[in-house]
Amino acid sequence: MASWIPIEDGSDFSLQNLPYGVFSTDDLDQRIGVAIGDYVLDLKALAQEKVFAAIDFDSSTLEEPTINAYASLRKRVHQDVRKLLQEILNESTLLGPVLRDYRDRRDRVLVPLSRAKMHMPMHIGDYTDFFVGLYHAQNCCDIFRPGMGLPPNFSSLPVGYHGRASSVVISGTPVHRPRGQIVLNGIPTESLCQKLDFEVEFAAFIGRGNKMGSRIDVNEAEDHIFGVVLMNDWSARDIQQWESTPLGPFNGKNFCTTISPWIVTLEALEPFRTTPLTV
Amino acid sequence: MASWIPIEDGSDFSLQNLPYGVFSTDDLDQRIGVAIGDYVLDLKALAQEKVFAAIDFDSSTLEEPTINAYASLRKRVHQDVRKLLQEILNESTLLGPVLRDYRDRRDRVLVPLSRAKMHMPMHIGDYTDFFVGLYHAQNCCDIFRPGMGLPPNFSSLPVGYHGRASSVVISGTPVHRPRGQIVLNGIPTESLCQKLDFEVEFAAFIGRGNKMGSRIDVNEAEDHIFGVVLMNDWSARDIQQWESTPLGPFNGKNFCTTISPWIVTLEALEPFRTTPLTV
Repeated sequence: MASWIPIEDGSDFSLQNLPYGVFSTDDLDQRIGVAIGDYVLDLKALAQEKVFAAIDFDSSTLEEPTINAYASLRKRVHQDVRKLLQEILNESTLLGPVLRDYRDRRDRVLVPLSRAKMHMPMHIGDYTDFFVGLYHAQNCCDIFRPGMGLPPNFSSLPVGYHGRASSVVISGTPVHRPRGQIVLNGIPTESLCQKLDFEVEFAAFIGRGNKMGSRIDVNEAEDHIFGVVLMNDWSARDIQQWESTPLGPFNGKNFCTTISPWIVTLEALEPFRTTPLTV
Repeated sequence: MASWIPIEDGSDFSLQNLPYGVFSTDDLDQRIGVAIGDYVLDLKALAQEKVFAAIDFDSSTLEEPTINAYASLRKRVHQDVRKLLQEILNESTLLGPVLRDYRDRRDRVLVPLSRAKMHMPMHIGDYTDFFVGLYHAQNCCDIFRPGMGLPPNFSSLPVGYHGRASSVVISGTPVHRPRGQIVLNGIPTESLCQKLDFEVEFAAFIGRGNKMGSRIDVNEAEDHIFGVVLMNDWSARDIQQWESTPLGPFNGKNFCTTISPWIVTLEALEPFRTTPLTV
C-alpha cells in the first residue's frame, strides 16, 4: 500500500498506520491531525471543507481541540474515516481531485511535521494502570515482596490502580525529579528521589464510555478502545516502597507519566495480532 | 448574625455558612449559587448585574456552569465575595438597595431550594483518598490485616490512593450494587457484592492548583482549599479484599463515591477550629 506522499522506508508513519494526534503550528490553532510520512494531515481543515460528507457522522467532532468527542463515536465511523483517508492518500487513488490533484488544498492541509507542535491528544478523565505482564509482575514482586511470589489474585483478575490523570504528559515534556519521604538508615526522611525508574508500558485510550452502573461485555471491549500509545511509567521506587502499604502506589508515580503523542488505532495493529502468551 | 431572609433555627444554611453549589431549575440553566435559608442565591444573575463590581476579580467566573474557575482564584477574592454577600443579606445591611429593598431583583435571584435541581459543583480532575484517621485506620487494619497492627508508615506520612474521579456523584444519585470478583468457598467467583459498606469522610476541593513539578508549602496549603464536603466512601469489601494486594483499592471503590452538593468554605468553619487529636 503506497502513497503519493513520499514515505521513507521504515517510517513510523506509513499509509497502514495513520495515527491520530493533536497539533498546532505558529499559524494554526490546536487541532486533530493524522501523521503520514513527514507530514501531519490537518483533519480540522478537511472537515471544514466537507471532505467527510459521505460518511454518516458528526464531522464537527474533528474540528475540536482534542480527540475526545471523535473518539467517543462508534468504531464504524473510525473505520470509515480510515478507509477514506487511505483511499485519498493512496498513489493509485480514484479520488485524486479530493487531495492529490488539488494543489491548493494539499499545500494547506499537509503540514510538515517539523512545524507541528504536539499536544496531549485527549483529555484524560481517569487513568488506570494494570498489573498484567507476567515477567513484569515477577520482577516487581522480587523487588517489593521478596520471597513471597506472585499475589494469589494474579492469575484470576487484572489487578489495577488509579494513577494521577492530571500528570500524564506527552513525550518530550521535561520530568522533574520528585521529592518525597523515603527511609534512609531506617529513618523516614524528606529527600529527592534516589531511585528513579522507568518502564515502557502499553496504554489504551477508551473512546466510547458506558453509563455509570452498566457494564461492558468483555466481547465488546475492543469497540471501546479508540487506540493505543506507548507509555513511560516513571517511578520513584524509594518513595513508592515506603508509602505503598496498604494502599498501593501514589506519590511514587504521581509526579509524571509520559505517553507518545500519536494514538495508533487497533485497525492499524490488526495485521500484527497474535495469540496471547500462555502461562 | 441575622438575615432579612427568614432562616429556621438549626438550618444548615445560615448567614454564617453560605455554602456554594451548582443548580438549575426548569427555567434557569446550570449555574453557581449560595444556599441561604430555604433559598439559593443565583450568583450568575448577580454577576451579570455587576453586583460584584467593587471586588477586584473576574466575575465572569461566577457565570460558568461549574465552580472550578471561581475556585481557582485567590483566597482573598473568596473572602471578599463572602463579606459582600454577608453584608447584603444581613438584616441591618447598609446595602439594602442592592437586594433587600430591590423587590424585582430579589424575586429573580432568590430561588426556592424546592425548585433547585442540584448538580456536581466542580469538575473533578483527580480524586485522592487519604488514610489518616487513627480509629478508622485501626478498624481497617483489623479487617484487612488482622494482628499486624498499623502499617509502619502510618505516623510518618498521610498514605493515600487515587480514587475514580469520574464516579464521584452528589447525594441522592442512585447507587448500583457492584458486581465483581470475590472469593467464595476459596474459589474466585464473579458475583454481586455481598459486603457493601459505607463510611462518612471529610473531603476537600482544591481550588487553586500548582504547576507540575512545583510544590505547595504546607503552611500555604489552606490557601489552595476552596472548601469541604461530606463524602460517602462506598466500598465493596469482598471485592476490595481480593483485589487489593499489591496495588490497593480499585473496583471495590470505583462504582460510586457520593458527596454533598454544597461546598462549605474554610471561612465558614473557622469558628469551629480546634486543636488536632494527638496520639
